[in-house]
Amino acid sequence: MMDYTKEEKERFMREALKEAHIALKLEEIPIGCVIVKDGEIIGRGHNAREELQRAVMHAEIMAIEEANSQTSSWRLLDATLFVTIEPCVMCSGAIGLARIPQVVFGATNQKFGAAGSLYDILTDERLNHRVAVESGILEEECAQMMQEFFRNRRKK
Amino acid sequence: MMDYTKEEKERFMREALKEAHIALKLEEIPIGCVIVKDGEIIGRGHNAREELQRAVMHAEIMAIEEANSQTSSWRLLDATLFVTIEPCVMCSGAIGLARIPQVVFGATNQKFGAAGSLYDILTDERLNHRVAVESGILEEECAQMMQEFFRNRRKK
Repeated sequence: MMDYTKEEKERFMREALKEAHIALKLEEIPIGCVIVKDGEIIGRGHNAREELQRAVMHAEIMAIEEANSQTSSWRLLDATLFVTIEPCVMCSGAIGLARIPQVVFGATNQKFGAAGSLYDILTDERLNHRVAVESGILEEECAQMMQEFFRNRRKK
Repeated sequence: MMDYTKEEKERFMREALKEAHIALKLEEIPIGCVIVKDGEIIGRGHNAREELQRAVMHAEIMAIEEANSQTSSWRLLDATLFVTIEPCVMCSGAIGLARIPQVVFGATNQKFGAAGSLYDILTDERLNHRVAVESGILEEECAQMMQEFFRNRRKK
């Protein structure tokens, strides 16, 4: 597991925010994700459920799919996943299945979060993979993008 | 939600078992799935994690992806998902996100099941989608295929 500095974490979270911004432009719920290994981004993703009409196409799943493809392996050992918003149940399950050891997220999701809010999937000792979780990196920017989206949607 | 007879449920579970058999031949953990709408199969899937080196490629995810593609919609309203083994955390989350109203599974998974065993994701009232769950359809055949796989693996 890499021990990134606060500056490095913020730099990678800004890359995740760029992905969230792509989703925002497409009128998707603006969540973005990057997966980093040895300081290099090996997967990027943004929520694309409406664009692609694929229920599973959350930011984290898109990034995991790309990282699996890039490394030709389903196991993402030594990788760190940066995501703007706390992962949901599906994505938390996927992170464990991909054996990702470290997750950094921006803002919590009180309604659907499964990395501490509704559930604590990533640290469940009964599952055969545990993940180190850190939150609060660029929290305000990550949360603001969501607030902007829902404010605009209510206006329509 | 469709009210299929016991014979119909067994017929669809046999189709899921055919998918599980494909996985078994590929030396994957043998789990299979079909998604049915108005009596027609709109998605099929088998576990293909090793074959495709994709961490998320469980039977249910493959079937949901095909059903989304077939119907050009991320919402699988009025669909029933048949799967040989109780869904894991990721797949239970995906079933809810795809708005599938009904799940029928064969055998429970005491170690990783999230539809009653470790978690009860599909009926969690805090999530914004609840699923009717039935288990025990062709339970023995479904469980036997898993036992055969793990027995063969231990021999190697």
